[in-house]
Amino acid sequence: MSSFRARVHVVLCQPRNPLNIGAAARAVSNFGCGGMRLVDPFDLAFREAVSAVGGAQVLRDAQVFATVAEAVADCSLVVGTTAVGNRELQHSLRRMENAGQEVRVAAAHAPVALLFGSEKFGLTNDEMSYCHWLTRISTTAETPSMNLGQAVAICLYEIVRLEGVTPEWPERRPERRPMRGSDAEQLTGMLLEVLRESGYTNRIVAGSLERKVRRFLRRVNLEARDAPLLLGMLRQILWKFRS
Amino acid sequence: MSSFRARVHVVLCQPRNPLNIGAAARAVSNFGCGGMRLVDPFDLAFREAVSAVGGAQVLRDAQVFATVAEAVADCSLVVGTTAVGNRELQHSLRRMENAGQEVRVAAAHAPVALLFGSEKFGLTNDEMSYCHWLTRISTTAETPSMNLGQAVAICLYEIVRLEGVTPEWPERRPERRPMRGSDAEQLTGMLLEVLRESGYTNRIVAGSLERKVRRFLRRVNLEARDAPLLLGMLRQILWKFRS
Repeated sequence: MSSFRARVHVVLCQPRNPLNIGAAARAVSNFGCGGMRLVDPFDLAFREAVSAVGGAQVLRDAQVFATVAEAVADCSLVVGTTAVGNRELQHSLRRMENAGQEVRVAAAHAPVALLFGSEKFGLTNDEMSYCHWLTRISTTAETPSMNLGQAVAICLYEIVRLEGVTPEWPERRPERRPMRGSDAEQLTGMLLEVLRESGYTNRIVAGSLERKVRRFLRRVNLEARDAPLLLGMLRQILWKFRS
Repeated sequence: MSSFRARVHVVLCQPRNPLNIGAAARAVSNFGCGGMRLVDPFDLAFREAVSAVGGAQVLRDAQVFATVAEAVADCSLVVGTTAVGNRELQHSLRRMENAGQEVRVAAAHAPVALLFGSEKFGLTNDEMSYCHWLTRISTTAETPSMNLGQAVAICLYEIVRLEGVTPEWPERRPERRPMRGSDAEQLTGMLLEVLRESGYTNRIVAGSLERKVRRFLRRVNLEARDAPLLLGMLRQILWKFRS
């Protein structure tokens, strides 16, 4: 886990719903970020109220503050999140997909706070005034506002998204061992034999069908391991025809 | 709103918690995607149980299906999501940040399904067998598994994320019209019938063979035009068996 993640803190301002707090905690845990800070939460029982899988430890460690000023006191960059709406913004605003890199760079050196407003109203003008700039997730005009837990998850995903210099798990693009030409041709021959014996093959079109079957069996990207499987099936069908 | 979004469908397999279904619906609305499909939901009252801001219309329009096969019948690409864990996967696996582009390209031409498993267990092997490939969000080893609503939100965010970017020169790839899910499934069913009647199918391995055949027919990149060809061949073989 690279160290910058530990310096990214999620700050929820006046959150109301313990389920959302739990979901945010789980996302912090999913993406290995620094932790969660709550400013004046509506329900102080949030720690007991929610048992978020994987987020339980984050919830236990969450710090509670009375004011935004205290919650971001150690942070050198404070980024506010907003769905904008028709409010007139005093801040510069970055698309979230462009904001990740800036957060990563800042968090390499000092703690960063991501501010999320209350579920109902978002960040107040007063809360925003602590932010260096704002960011927005590109949602539709019809439904601009996101669920709090989902917004937190997307912001953290974007921030760690390009970390992948050394991915912690490998993609599986399975080693493809393409089928050898001779196997493809044996398959072609046996499929044509099945088609002949089944009565599918019309004598008039036999030549063009043969080319069609041959092209088809090359186009579909068969792998070496498919040869025994398919030959076994065709062999069984021929056996059935003849018995 | 670009048209590809309308062709991206979120498919929840056996979802249990109406709150998660509501959160998924809201994300579908936030990112302007095609809609939501539910396979065998635990609680059929999900429409009344949840009033997700912005997702209400998506919830009202959600379609319910008894099986995965029906839910993805019109889809030419089916992508499964997984936290992997220690299960042995039979599919290729892409990091989510690399998967968005492929989904966008596919959805430019035909409907795409994103499959999400149940909250407790994720996708079953049977559900996975309908997928062309799998994708994973890069979470920490300590807390790999994400909340369902948050996972849906991140996947949709990633898929629409680079929508604005238009390449300066077009790649040239031959026009491919991939096979629809319902055609692939009809083919699967008829091939299994042939294998049964030929005596290939051993009763003991029938279940795993079914998944194997289904995965095989998705992996080989069949095109729409292959359906009538292959179905015709199989029909003839069955006719021959029975005559």
